[in-house]
Amino acid sequence: MYFKITGLLFALFIANAACAAERDEPIQPLAAPVVTNPAKVKLGKKLFFDPRLSKSGFISCNSCHNLSMGGSDNLKTSIGHNWQQGPINSPTVLNSSLAIAQFWDGRAADLKTQAGGPIANPIEMASSHELAVSVLRTIPGYVAEFKTVFGSEGIDIDRITEAIAAFEETLVTPDSRFDHWLKGDDKALDERELAGYMLFRNSGCVACHNGPAVGGTSFQKMGVVEPYITSSAAAGRADVTGNDDDRFNFKVPTLRNVELTYPYFHDGEAATLEQAVEVMGRLQLGRKFTAREVSDIVAFLKTLTGRQPAFVLPRLPPSSNDTPRPLPFGKE
Amino acid sequence: MYFKITGLLFALFIANAACAAERDEPIQPLAAPVVTNPAKVKLGKKLFFDPRLSKSGFISCNSCHNLSMGGSDNLKTSIGHNWQQGPINSPTVLNSSLAIAQFWDGRAADLKTQAGGPIANPIEMASSHELAVSVLRTIPGYVAEFKTVFGSEGIDIDRITEAIAAFEETLVTPDSRFDHWLKGDDKALDERELAGYMLFRNSGCVACHNGPAVGGTSFQKMGVVEPYITSSAAAGRADVTGNDDDRFNFKVPTLRNVELTYPYFHDGEAATLEQAVEVMGRLQLGRKFTAREVSDIVAFLKTLTGRQPAFVLPRLPPSSNDTPRPLPFGKE
Repeated sequence: MYFKITGLLFALFIANAACAAERDEPIQPLAAPVVTNPAKVKLGKKLFFDPRLSKSGFISCNSCHNLSMGGSDNLKTSIGHNWQQGPINSPTVLNSSLAIAQFWDGRAADLKTQAGGPIANPIEMASSHELAVSVLRTIPGYVAEFKTVFGSEGIDIDRITEAIAAFEETLVTPDSRFDHWLKGDDKALDERELAGYMLFRNSGCVACHNGPAVGGTSFQKMGVVEPYITSSAAAGRADVTGNDDDRFNFKVPTLRNVELTYPYFHDGEAATLEQAVEVMGRLQLGRKFTAREVSDIVAFLKTLTGRQPAFVLPRLPPSSNDTPRPLPFGKE
Repeated sequence: MYFKITGLLFALFIANAACAAERDEPIQPLAAPVVTNPAKVKLGKKLFFDPRLSKSGFISCNSCHNLSMGGSDNLKTSIGHNWQQGPINSPTVLNSSLAIAQFWDGRAADLKTQAGGPIANPIEMASSHELAVSVLRTIPGYVAEFKTVFGSEGIDIDRITEAIAAFEETLVTPDSRFDHWLKGDDKALDERELAGYMLFRNSGCVACHNGPAVGGTSFQKMGVVEPYITSSAAAGRADVTGNDDDRFNFKVPTLRNVELTYPYFHDGEAATLEQAVEVMGRLQLGRKFTAREVSDIVAFLKTLTGRQPAFVLPRLPPSSNDTPRPLPFGKE
């Protein structure tokens, strides 16, 4: 009797799952990350949180891509070494593995290449690859862990950035309410959220904000119908290609977890989602959304907040007496 | 039969536990923290990690009391708002609930009072209690959580610091190898570590570094036999009492997890444990330890590293459109 009921329930479950087929939409559900090398991910997590990769010993990857705050710093533009003001808004690290390239201007092809950038950037972590390597090589806990992960002795910038990228690849946020709706659960969105999505889709936002990450798949001009006025010097793709036609071409940001990644745009000038939606509609689509329309779209956007990465705060192996000491003030 | 064997094993276990009686030493084992209000601790943990308690939105309690690094920042003196150089070495937050008072000069009676200090200190987090409160009051997630934790609506600095202190009280690190030895496990220390402890005890280090936290129970003059030479302006208790006799009286730091909390002394001038032991022996005890003695004491000190706090990185509730925005550069 017990097995018969269990069997019946199972059959019903299968039938139900088959019924709730995935919807055919320009946005697809996020798949949970598959971890193939947990030891490398664990090492990368430590490195991501380790401020010793910076000259000051104060700034880690997590400083500007704070995993307590949607993988961003929630500042207009970031704070770097010696409190220098960065030129651009820190993009979220969440779901960044799904992007066509890294940085707003796409100057790094992948996460591994990206990870090396801020370490050596004088207005970010202000270290150098040489210094970062010599710091880690003198930390016995890291020496042992790199050997375990990579199968041989040795720490170099290649292995460091590979491990950081392996960790970042796990920072995918599935199971948002919108994902449940995409998978066929009609009750996952309320009426306004659904109206907001329909407006988002049918007004053309999905021309750029599409795919599983709801963006990140192309470079687009900021200011198509109307020019974008900003005091930011960032020129987007033109800074990479040297081609003036690429001016203000930026990577379309992911809208996953956008509720958490304020402020918005490459210059961080849109403080609220409402402002961002209003400006995007006007500049990119030539459309003046009503207050009600903006509010509906914002309601939809908030359904894109997924399951945030959950892990135990890493404990970093202590420096040894040989480890180069941090130099936050340059005169220690 | 099964119950008979189990009963026998249980009797043996009890007998064994009774045998391994706690040793009578000037240092006592750390007891694991007892959490009486897990909801308050959870709220306090979020606040501890929340950089929105600072003016810049960049500095949290965890910035200088980094729980990935022994509850300290591993810098000589800390970095504050606008990269200002702090006047003193950041003491570890680990086991700080066991201290006679808070800060090196003991100017705060308890953790709750301490927590309010850095938030409003212009060279640390550079916010004000008023601003911190108005930030949190506009964050719906916090409004709801404070209500749940405190049983009524309302966020004020009193509740904020009470929750932070409740979290900090859980940051106790039991189960070090030395604790196992204290509890009777002869194999927990090797010969050198034991020799180091005997030297530590019999030379008089335990006159100040005693109790469960191996320190933290008294204020003592830095430089008893020989004066301590430093460029640091910190005067210790004299800054609190206004009494010149208290000059260079500092709270004796805990030596728990001292392997992780480098550099040492209130000015962070001792980069290594070896230096710290050598200087302490000479200045406080008038004793010139040999290199071998220093090395033995350091071996003992490294057995004081306990079980570090292990918890999932908190996820912070997002700001609302009404939340005052951070002002890292003062001109946004």
